[in-house]
Amino acid sequence: MADSLRIGIAGLGTVGASLVRILQQRSNELAITCGRAIEIIAVSARDRSRDRGIDLTGITWFDTPEQLASEAEIDVFVELVGGASGQAENAVRAALARGLHVVTANKALLAKHGVELATIAEDKGALLNFEAAVAGGIPVIKALRESLTGNHVSRIYGIMNGTCNYILTKMEKEGLSFEACLKEAQRLGYAEADPAFDIEGNDTAHKLAILTTLAFGNKISADDIYLEGITNISSEDIQAAAELGYRIKLLGVAQVTESGIEQRVHPTMVPLDSVIAQVDGVTNAVAIESDILGELLMVGPGAGGNATASAVLGDIADIAKSRPGAQQVPVLGRPAKSLTEYRRAKMKSHEGGYFIRLTVKDQAGVFASIATRMADNNISLESIVQRQRVHVEGAPQTIILVTHATMEDAIRKAVKAIKNEKYLVSEPQVIRIERT
Amino acid sequence: MADSLRIGIAGLGTVGASLVRILQQRSNELAITCGRAIEIIAVSARDRSRDRGIDLTGITWFDTPEQLASEAEIDVFVELVGGASGQAENAVRAALARGLHVVTANKALLAKHGVELATIAEDKGALLNFEAAVAGGIPVIKALRESLTGNHVSRIYGIMNGTCNYILTKMEKEGLSFEACLKEAQRLGYAEADPAFDIEGNDTAHKLAILTTLAFGNKISADDIYLEGITNISSEDIQAAAELGYRIKLLGVAQVTESGIEQRVHPTMVPLDSVIAQVDGVTNAVAIESDILGELLMVGPGAGGNATASAVLGDIADIAKSRPGAQQVPVLGRPAKSLTEYRRAKMKSHEGGYFIRLTVKDQAGVFASIATRMADNNISLESIVQRQRVHVEGAPQTIILVTHATMEDAIRKAVKAIKNEKYLVSEPQVIRIERT
Repeated sequence: MADSLRIGIAGLGTVGASLVRILQQRSNELAITCGRAIEIIAVSARDRSRDRGIDLTGITWFDTPEQLASEAEIDVFVELVGGASGQAENAVRAALARGLHVVTANKALLAKHGVELATIAEDKGALLNFEAAVAGGIPVIKALRESLTGNHVSRIYGIMNGTCNYILTKMEKEGLSFEACLKEAQRLGYAEADPAFDIEGNDTAHKLAILTTLAFGNKISADDIYLEGITNISSEDIQAAAELGYRIKLLGVAQVTESGIEQRVHPTMVPLDSVIAQVDGVTNAVAIESDILGELLMVGPGAGGNATASAVLGDIADIAKSRPGAQQVPVLGRPAKSLTEYRRAKMKSHEGGYFIRLTVKDQAGVFASIATRMADNNISLESIVQRQRVHVEGAPQTIILVTHATMEDAIRKAVKAIKNEKYLVSEPQVIRIERT
Repeated sequence: MADSLRIGIAGLGTVGASLVRILQQRSNELAITCGRAIEIIAVSARDRSRDRGIDLTGITWFDTPEQLASEAEIDVFVELVGGASGQAENAVRAALARGLHVVTANKALLAKHGVELATIAEDKGALLNFEAAVAGGIPVIKALRESLTGNHVSRIYGIMNGTCNYILTKMEKEGLSFEACLKEAQRLGYAEADPAFDIEGNDTAHKLAILTTLAFGNKISADDIYLEGITNISSEDIQAAAELGYRIKLLGVAQVTESGIEQRVHPTMVPLDSVIAQVDGVTNAVAIESDILGELLMVGPGAGGNATASAVLGDIADIAKSRPGAQQVPVLGRPAKSLTEYRRAKMKSHEGGYFIRLTVKDQAGVFASIATRMADNNISLESIVQRQRVHVEGAPQTIILVTHATMEDAIRKAVKAIKNEKYLVSEPQVIRIERT
């Protein structure tokens, strides 16, 4: 049997503690599977005295991730600290500078510094694995980076934030408001005390930016993502969607268009009978459309200590199974130096169907006016319905439009024209429909 | 850049021709991604004169797979011949004997000789990759062999035969008979002229046997699979399933039980609102339940020249990305010599829910008699309903039972007792319900 693989783990939160436990409890079988033992040599975490329910006897303690990455006698540095910069970044840079392999679950770090870190890793002949950074336990990085080699991806989309999917699922199943479901998610630990990063779509955007690069071979460009969260989705939208045969999901979508790459995160209507529409609660899903393979969909746990630890362990095992320095999987699917400049498609050129919900005054001619504004912008309608369960003279009316595929620009112009007409009672709701 | 990876391809049917085309058309980008060129050195096929729409200029032709495997100056032997023995087996043995890496799409060969071939490959330090052998383009082998390292799998199940899923989908959507849908599948090329291997479940069984070994670490045991095809599924079953909130799928299921490993292929009721129930037509799906990761489901094309070629290409690229002889991924997830003896769980010990459809004479006391036979065997019923849309005096009645989780043995005894009562008009239909 070959020499053991020596690892150092920075960060002993839920994921780190779970990883230590698994590596210790399953050391024998892992050694058999990998052809050599995986040995935890060093750890670092903020609080040395905290009881994490794991045995750290014989493992060297470092006070900072940077020290661990710089000084420990290890082959692999496992970064579970988190954050786009600071300690995590410094430690990963220090580890790569020494030619160590790095395994990380840090999406923010990769979304910001991924190309640079990949370049350093490849120059040093080191591996940089990050399966856990996107969609937790779903092996989507491996699918894109390895299984789909040679394919040209045309679109990738997915449910990549469990908090949002939990809230949307609960809103639909129990008919509750966004606020009530957010509170319940917080109570259950599915949402942070400050939930903005999740519910406004930023978390999904970080993950999408990484997938986009693996799919299309461009430099990571997280700042170029069109972003809409789920905070203004109402029970009315969810109910109307169901009646029209749709379900609302927060999707991250990246696709190739004639004018460049479209990267967008927004609430999306997907057909009720599609596979992705059945993905409930905190579960994640990622779909990849490519020209040779066709469509591949993967569904699984997107977060949680164990699921994330499983992805980290898979990354470590991949290193253990190869002889030191022997593998050359490009970090981002293609050698970092061959990644292309990011060419952003304009969101107003986006093509697709739209759901538009308008609350209007109960006055003659409104229906005709709306239909006319749509026609003025060459928007072809699949349906336009007026909904009011019980007609009360003078009460606001709801009008719901579903368009055939059209341009975002036309929708924006039509909605603007409708707003100018002064019969709207509240802000119009516009939700994009995604072909699945 | 490293030396090119030299490959030889045996078999130039749909998959082989597609593979040659992709390797030629995308040679530059593949060389960039893999860090070295992939070069087709040699091919073999039955008919040299046939026009396959591919350019074989400069590629050495061999008349047999064995010759190619034994004599060509290659690093990787790609076996696309098919068949559990004969030319395919001889050629793969010859290639491994020379220490060549092997990539194959041959499920029958692996189901029969997989452990022995894996042992030889590992002794020689060669890789034996076979992503295309199970569920076509779905990277389930990679998920089990690499991503799930360290996990203990408890159950794996899936839709692994596109022919059967196409027929069942069409029967439901169009209300047609099994025979009519089979004919349509044959017309479209989704079913063979002799469809027995698909519709009787053997194809699914081969794939399941391979997945079972990857999941549980036992020796491959394809002969120990409980097998029921879809030939006796009627429109009535499909309609009754829908009314009860289920859909019928041909599943291959392997799970760990107290008495051993259960491997079974049979028509199965899955809940209508489950993700796997939405998997339509020729699409495949595989679900893996494991203790660290949780549940992972993958959906994608299970067959077709391009999808299969994509999986083969991924396997070749994995070899190209590693330096020669540098990787040691165990062929079947664990080193072949450490695979355990297969311990078969008795099918009569299977636990689960059951759907039972009985066609009975229209006579007093039948309903009570059936309920009593169930109670005699301690079978707890979720529902028992009598269905006859229009009551016609004296015409046969349909009685449908759905049981709570119970033992297969109890069901068999109860059904036998009911058959002894002489009020059955036709054979009882029993379909297992699978928890998803």
